[in-house]
Amino acid sequence: MRVSELSVESGVAIATIKYYLREGLLHQGRQIAATRAEYDDSHLRRLRLIRALLEVGRLPVASIKKVIEAVDDESLSVHLMLGTAQYALGPTIEPEPGDEWEAARGQVDLLIAELGWDVSPDAPTRDELTQTIVRMGQLGMSTDLMVYAQTAQKLVTEVEMDTVPFDGPREAAVEALVLGTVLYGRAFDALRRLAHESESARRVGGSDDTSRKEPSGSDQAT
Amino acid sequence: MRVSELSVESGVAIATIKYYLREGLLHQGRQIAATRAEYDDSHLRRLRLIRALLEVGRLPVASIKKVIEAVDDESLSVHLMLGTAQYALGPTIEPEPGDEWEAARGQVDLLIAELGWDVSPDAPTRDELTQTIVRMGQLGMSTDLMVYAQTAQKLVTEVEMDTVPFDGPREAAVEALVLGTVLYGRAFDALRRLAHESESARRVGGSDDTSRKEPSGSDQAT
Repeated sequence: MRVSELSVESGVAIATIKYYLREGLLHQGRQIAATRAEYDDSHLRRLRLIRALLEVGRLPVASIKKVIEAVDDESLSVHLMLGTAQYALGPTIEPEPGDEWEAARGQVDLLIAELGWDVSPDAPTRDELTQTIVRMGQLGMSTDLMVYAQTAQKLVTEVEMDTVPFDGPREAAVEALVLGTVLYGRAFDALRRLAHESESARRVGGSDDTSRKEPSGSDQAT
Repeated sequence: MRVSELSVESGVAIATIKYYLREGLLHQGRQIAATRAEYDDSHLRRLRLIRALLEVGRLPVASIKKVIEAVDDESLSVHLMLGTAQYALGPTIEPEPGDEWEAARGQVDLLIAELGWDVSPDAPTRDELTQTIVRMGQLGMSTDLMVYAQTAQKLVTEVEMDTVPFDGPREAAVEALVLGTVLYGRAFDALRRLAHESESARRVGGSDDTSRKEPSGSDQAT
């Protein structure tokens, strides 16, 4: 198809497609005349992936480039390709060396070992969880995350990973992983806050009852 | 205590304390001389809450003000006070009227009803979940979120809400809710991505094995 058809099919503006071609995010079409190139399904798939990384993953173009390079590098296993995308989705964490950090990092490594998870020793996600545990400890919160880890494992193995087509085109696997990671994450976050509201209503009185003006603490459940 | 002691005890700089006093986020101390005010534990608690909202919740000062007003309004039930904080933590969502939006919103309302959750009909969290479901549908993802909702309910009722001291000072309840919502959310998000990595390793080959250079798709589990 011509670039104009590619634009219609993908919903991406022609100027944007040309930008992706210049930046190397999208591979060139087959040149069939001096001023005309032919595009195919591989370009459509690639544009879908770029949109997913950009609009849903909210990744900067530099990170998208790294993910695309991993997709294009066929010598890279599917697992390492997905890892590149997965790491790009997390925040960049600077470890804060010191006893507190080391203790929390030890806790993260122990948790992963106890669960028998196969996670790279260098995974930046280990540092990300370490930072959150340090913060929780400083604020006097419990840092026992075993129930959360087991719950995450259950959702990931029983629902999320089944949506990733490991045996299809490489773009499709990355796209599904990124969409699943981000959108299931957002949905779960909203659901947790809805459950908070409901549980709070149960414990200290509902939101739409007539008792809204009563003094606080008068109808505690416990 | 004097403002200098309040600063040492809270870890908040004197200039920042004075800014909070001017903005009405922190209540005035008891004036014991023309140039000297006396502060007490209620000021320490309030400063802890402001830091939690600012540093962990990452709320803008305008939103913090609304939460503080709800804490100070003793005619507001604990439930409505917590709701003010909870809603402030979510993103601001503009509904996108149309059939797609209405269908997704209907799905959210049905899910909440099926679970028997006590959630205000006006809760902005309903719109937040609606928006995510619309996006998932557009991308061809399954929007069946019942397993996620049940999982959220389990974590919230069995772990998170037990950390909220409903019968203590109002600040303490809000502080615990905000810290729990944000930090457990961050921890869970990192745990999900760790579980993704592990499960991906199981299905298509580990991260630190010697097969990293094999062509993609050659060792699929299925």
